[in-house]
Amino acid sequence: MRYRATMTSRRGFLAGAAGLATLGLGPPARAEGTMYGLIGKMTAYAGKRDELTAILLEGLGRMPGCLSYVVAHDPQDADAIWVTEVWTDEAAHRASLQVPEVKTAIQKGLPLIADFSDAITTTPVGGVGLGAPAGHG
Amino acid sequence: MRYRATMTSRRGFLAGAAGLATLGLGPPARAEGTMYGLIGKMTAYAGKRDELTAILLEGLGRMPGCLSYVVAHDPQDADAIWVTEVWTDEAAHRASLQVPEVKTAIQKGLPLIADFSDAITTTPVGGVGLGAPAGHG
Repeated sequence: MRYRATMTSRRGFLAGAAGLATLGLGPPARAEGTMYGLIGKMTAYAGKRDELTAILLEGLGRMPGCLSYVVAHDPQDADAIWVTEVWTDEAAHRASLQVPEVKTAIQKGLPLIADFSDAITTTPVGGVGLGAPAGHG
Repeated sequence: MRYRATMTSRRGFLAGAAGLATLGLGPPARAEGTMYGLIGKMTAYAGKRDELTAILLEGLGRMPGCLSYVVAHDPQDADAIWVTEVWTDEAAHRASLQVPEVKTAIQKGLPLIADFSDAITTTPVGGVGLGAPAGHG
């Protein structure tokens, strides 16, 4: 396995995956005009994955500039969730952390999370499923 | 970092990310009716990432059952590409490996790839950017 940590801290990923605006950590500097991606894993307390999943999926339609946000279960770990995200740019991701529905989800989800793996930040360059962003503008 | 290898071998990911049907490795058994996801990283030979990226993006519209396929650059590694995929089910992913355009991309891309990290297989459960599959049916 060659997965490497990038500039995103654990807390940074927490903010990224679950929309944790209240942690107030600024993301790393990044070039203008590029998409912004996150790949990361969180582990729920035993038996809490479904509940955490439902919270993560709440309010996803209300995030301007979100091109893709996939919540997936790890078939090898009954408590683990993978979250992969694509945003129009880093600013859109940052702004999403101020959305009231996202803040509410954070408050509900945090007590269910036992552990975070450091996130990978990426620069998406294209693909399938990156259509018009929901609520963009 | 807590990234764990699952049942997908390096070759399995090779098949997953670049559509390498010719390797002929069967994917692990999986429940019916669930989406199928892959997360993995490949490293191009020095200076070849852009060329490999273009090849990966070729023919993506021709994969029935593909809900999401994101090609992303690693901002920390000038040769690295992250690929994240979501399929309607595992059979759709497997079938994509027989698409002529995918086979052609494989033949063109393989000589540019220096290394693969083991892929994570996931069971996507929902999110943004998982609309009607391109060419499904």
